Formats: sequence, structure tokens, C-alpha cells
Amino acid sequence: MAVEYYDFGPYKIHHSSVFHTTDLSFAFVNLRPAVPGHVLICPKREVKRVADLTDDENIELWRIAHKLGRQLESYHNASSLRLAIQDGPQAGQSVPHVHIHILPYWKNGDFENNDEINEKEKELKRKVVVDIERKDRSLEEMAQEANEYRKFVIS
Amino acid sequence: MAVEYYDFGPYKIHHSSVFHTTDLSFAFVNLRPAVPGHVLICPKREVKRVADLTDDENIELWRIAHKLGRQLESYHNASSLRLAIQDGPQAGQSVPHVHIHILPYWKNGDFENNDEINEKEKELKRKVVVDIERKDRSLEEMAQEANEYRKFVIS
Repeated sequence: MAVEYYDFGPYKIHHSSVFHTTDLSFAFVNLRPAVPGHVLICPKREVKRVADLTDDENIELWRIAHKLGRQLESYHNASSLRLAIQDGPQAGQSVPHVHIHILPYWKNGDFENNDEINEKEKELKRKVVVDIERKDRSLEEMAQEANEYRKFVIS
Repeated sequence: MAVEYYDFGPYKIHHSSVFHTTDLSFAFVNLRPAVPGHVLICPKREVKRVADLTDDENIELWRIAHKLGRQLESYHNASSLRLAIQDGPQAGQSVPHVHIHILPYWKNGDFENNDEINEKEKELKRKVVVDIERKDRSLEEMAQEANEYRKFVIS
């Protein structure tokens, strides 16, 4: 039976926000994305630092990160990616549970001028860009995004 | 016989700047470090994007990154790390050859107040922090840093 919530440090991630899982990891959409397509990948086991990961977790996390990164870049019509771990509070880690950030990047102006990008995505980008306060998104909004990703993510 | 230079995109990295190598990867000190201990890890094979890495290269790079990160954090008396790949020009990748950045971070004030940190390192931090222009360092300066790292890095 699928779990209802996934542990992310002290937080609970509702399964509707999780769009991909493996034996050792899960990937979910962001409560406060910095750009559209900004997702997080975690080990299921709650470990604070990268040094606490087993070799198997390490391999699995980065395999998934590279795979999802490629697929998200394509889905969002992006041209680059940033893959990053803030490993410890002084590096900006806000949740004490190892997580890889994946962030797509676009060529200047590409996003606004590309007719192939649908209106929903343009709206998402506008909202993200203007949302200086990085407010929490609703569960529904996140579930909708996760649902889109589930359609193209192949195990 | 050891190679004299390692290819890093269109650049040549002198072996004296390289402090660790494996079958598929090499790690070297930075020409313009953002913080002390800011090093780079590359696949020996020149590939532009993460998507071009083989599974073996991917596994090897992150295994080395996690290992060296832990050792550099300890050596530099740091408390956190940032591990990042700028994958493509729009994500800030300046050299078209996949490379992982490792950057140590310190608690506020830790660095200046810690008597155990030697004067050489304080000087490096001062130089790095004030060096807004991020000028190129000399080959000698980089060789000296790489030499320090070689003493504690274990294969």
C-alpha cells in the first residue's frame, strides 16, 4: 500500500506532491519553488548530512537526480540545470534531511517568447518570479504539478 | 607515467594543481576560488553535460565528491558544504566540461575566532573575501594548496 506521507526532516510531504519513488529515494515538488520545475530528491531514510549516506543511497540519489533533471529540462523547454546539495546549515540547508535541488534554467527571453510553452506554465513562471516572499503553495497546486511530472517520468 | 596536463574543456590544468585522481576522474584546486577549499571534480573524459556521463562516471564523480567534501570540511575546520553542478551555460557553467563544485562553509565568525586555524589559512580567506575581481591565482599558489590536500586525501 502506498504511504500517505513521506518524512522530510520534521515535515510530512503528502504523497500527492511526490512524483517519483525508488527503493531508497523519493522526489517531490517544492512548497516554494525558486523557478518552475524546482524539485527536491531525498533519501527515504532521514539523514542530516551527505557523509551519513550509504554508498547505495548516494548512487541512487544521483542516478535519479541526473535522470529527472534531464526529463524536467525537456518538459520545461529549458536549456540548463543546476543540481545542488546544501550540506549543513551554514551552506543554507533549511531542512536537516539530505536533499538534492534540481533547478532548470532558460536562455534569456526564451521562456516568454516561446509559443510552444503553454499558458499554464507561463502563469507559473510569472507567479514564481514575482513572488518575492516565496509564499507556500497550496497542496492542490503542488499535486497538479506532481501529476504532470508523473506522466513523463519513467522508472 | 603521470600526465603533465589534464584537459578541462579548452583549458589545460597543470598536474601540480591536481590533488586526487581516479580511473575516471580528477580533482583540482581552483584558479579563482569563491571560498578557501573551493575545489572542482571532473570526469577525465571531456563531456559537456551531465546527461552525457556514463553511469560509471556519474557514480565515480559523486563518490569522490562526497569523500573529498568530508575531508576538506574537516581540514578547513568548516561546518557545512555546498556540492553543485552548473549543468549548461544558462545555469552558470563557464567551462563546457562537467565539473562538481565543492565549497566549504563556516559558522558566522568561526573562522576569524578559531585559534586553531593557522595564519596561512586566515590570509587565504582574507584574500578570497576581499578579492572582488576574483583574479587568477599563480601556479605556485595553487600547487601549494594542492600539496596540502594530497597529504590527507586517501584513495
